[in-house]
Amino acid sequence: MKNIELKRPTLILDKARCLRNIRFMKEKAERHNMILRPHFKTHQSLAIGDWFRESGTGKITVSSVGMAKYFANAGWKDICIAFPFNLHEINDVRELALNATIHLTVCSSESLEYIKKNSEENFGIYIKTDTGYHRTGLLFSDTGEIDNILRITSKSSKLSFTGFMVHNGHTYRSPDIEGINKIHVESTEKLLKLKARYIGDNPGIIISTGDTPSCSISESFSGVDEIRPGNYVFYDLMQLHLGSCSSSDISVVLAAPVVARHRERNEIVVYGGAVHLSSEHAENNKGMRVYGQVVELGSDGTWSDPVPEVYVTKVSQEHGIIKCTESIFKRIKTGDFLGIIPVHSCLAANLMGSYTALSGEVIDHYSGKIIG
Amino acid sequence: MKNIELKRPTLILDKARCLRNIRFMKEKAERHNMILRPHFKTHQSLAIGDWFRESGTGKITVSSVGMAKYFANAGWKDICIAFPFNLHEINDVRELALNATIHLTVCSSESLEYIKKNSEENFGIYIKTDTGYHRTGLLFSDTGEIDNILRITSKSSKLSFTGFMVHNGHTYRSPDIEGINKIHVESTEKLLKLKARYIGDNPGIIISTGDTPSCSISESFSGVDEIRPGNYVFYDLMQLHLGSCSSSDISVVLAAPVVARHRERNEIVVYGGAVHLSSEHAENNKGMRVYGQVVELGSDGTWSDPVPEVYVTKVSQEHGIIKCTESIFKRIKTGDFLGIIPVHSCLAANLMGSYTALSGEVIDHYSGKIIG
Repeated sequence: MKNIELKRPTLILDKARCLRNIRFMKEKAERHNMILRPHFKTHQSLAIGDWFRESGTGKITVSSVGMAKYFANAGWKDICIAFPFNLHEINDVRELALNATIHLTVCSSESLEYIKKNSEENFGIYIKTDTGYHRTGLLFSDTGEIDNILRITSKSSKLSFTGFMVHNGHTYRSPDIEGINKIHVESTEKLLKLKARYIGDNPGIIISTGDTPSCSISESFSGVDEIRPGNYVFYDLMQLHLGSCSSSDISVVLAAPVVARHRERNEIVVYGGAVHLSSEHAENNKGMRVYGQVVELGSDGTWSDPVPEVYVTKVSQEHGIIKCTESIFKRIKTGDFLGIIPVHSCLAANLMGSYTALSGEVIDHYSGKIIG
Repeated sequence: MKNIELKRPTLILDKARCLRNIRFMKEKAERHNMILRPHFKTHQSLAIGDWFRESGTGKITVSSVGMAKYFANAGWKDICIAFPFNLHEINDVRELALNATIHLTVCSSESLEYIKKNSEENFGIYIKTDTGYHRTGLLFSDTGEIDNILRITSKSSKLSFTGFMVHNGHTYRSPDIEGINKIHVESTEKLLKLKARYIGDNPGIIISTGDTPSCSISESFSGVDEIRPGNYVFYDLMQLHLGSCSSSDISVVLAAPVVARHRERNEIVVYGGAVHLSSEHAENNKGMRVYGQVVELGSDGTWSDPVPEVYVTKVSQEHGIIKCTESIFKRIKTGDFLGIIPVHSCLAANLMGSYTALSGEVIDHYSGKIIG
């Protein structure tokens, strides 16, 4: 391959597509007069972070304290840790708050009480709100507990209430884009009610939403102050199936070498399995469980549209099994590299631990090891 | 916790259980007069490798060239890379063969022809054989292609035919231990037929089998020369469900802090998700998809039997959702650490990247980064 020496499973990144995705969401946020606080848990990369910075992004979201430290060390100054606060990491977030504006996420007055008692630094506080996903967060109707939380922030000179945050992960279960938009609109209405109820005593509070499907598809952002999508920087097979993106928006594929061919069942075995793609699966149009879809790699590392009907149908630790049509099977030789669109790019990137750009440049990914 | 300062998701290893598992399989192999060539892809650890060495193990199995290099650098001298040979790694395996006995795995004459043309070192060659799993390997009935392969080894002074290798991964789909044993026995019979057919021209060849379920459960090893189980060093929820082990044999659990509680649905949220446990799932006794089962952690890091009916029922990138009974829910507080038996310990270990022993010692795991 032109700039890339491929030997084993490699996560290839098309920078031009990535930049286009970054620009797309930035322009959308600007058009709707919203803050874009992109979620960096998808790429976890300082180099890709720089591309966001160059596009005008200053505020970011992460999903762990370690990730926050990784980006804070690289000069990011406004970081939201969008994960329910883990009491055991109080000293780590205190240290972070010395050099950056840190927003913590709470879903109980108990956690906030702990933060208040055990810290002296300034923190922004998001209340994680549940408007229907039911993964975590305070039920939006639980104004009793919201009152308890705001009683704590109102008495503190260090803890300031940033606003209500929601993640509508149930958009991922929507059968179509109308369904995604409906979830988004109804959730926003609930957040707006909360904002209306509390803004009198808490001027300046915001509502923050932002799963990638809603942010990609919807144009209904009236009243939304901030969005926090992350996956759109790469997109993936799940997003393609949801209708959040077209295949030409997907900016990462796993290049995997063919190591065996089984003509009696038109199956190809690649070196590329659960430790590269993850065990995350989607369903193809026949309701069959799939772990990735095949694309053809060009000599410059770019790739084709998805090859129809050709999926990774099984993974084990290092093996990926690709069920082929007979004509495709005949064209593929042992030693060829196939591209595979991952089902969930965040998990594949986390497993691979680095990216290779089409230029050959190797791009960093947080190792998870920055804090002990 | 006594010797361990827990702050975030941590993979705890009970060394005594681990040593007991190592000893159990070593004794079983000795009792049946078999070579034990344990698969190190489960633990991927030099320190744990040393425990095997101390038990008398000299021959090992790995699933990637990088892993082979990791262990060869630590002095292991007889390594089987039990993954279909990847043509692009020829120079890496040549380098390895300078200091260790390296066995490669092939499922086609084409791959072996490539090795022959592009190397000058000595290699042992296993023929990966498919006796029913249908992941990869030559169908055991394909004696035409086996003949082609053996024509190449017979003409080479560098490539020697080690024997027939099988991995019966379909034991993992067996409904009961009788089914596992049946698969194992039938597969062994097929391998013995192959050995009988080829041993005349290839004296000293062996048959090598060895998924953890069969090796744990079966006592039928007549004629088997070598076993290569790996997972038994830790076991996990999948093996427990299969009947390969009892819960007291499981030697790793993920310690995960509770970060939120949702009393309206008796759900606990832990910091411990798909990037810690993997997205691998099993089914509980109600046919529900689960990502781990909860155990209670003692003050010394040891853990209880699995808590009945309390499973991780959903994972996202960093979140694990635990559905509780009401009485259990009431006992668990935010900030508590729960133990979680992973569904697939190999994948959890690969994601976590290290282990913490009950003594507090941090134990290495191959990072995947040793080769470029």
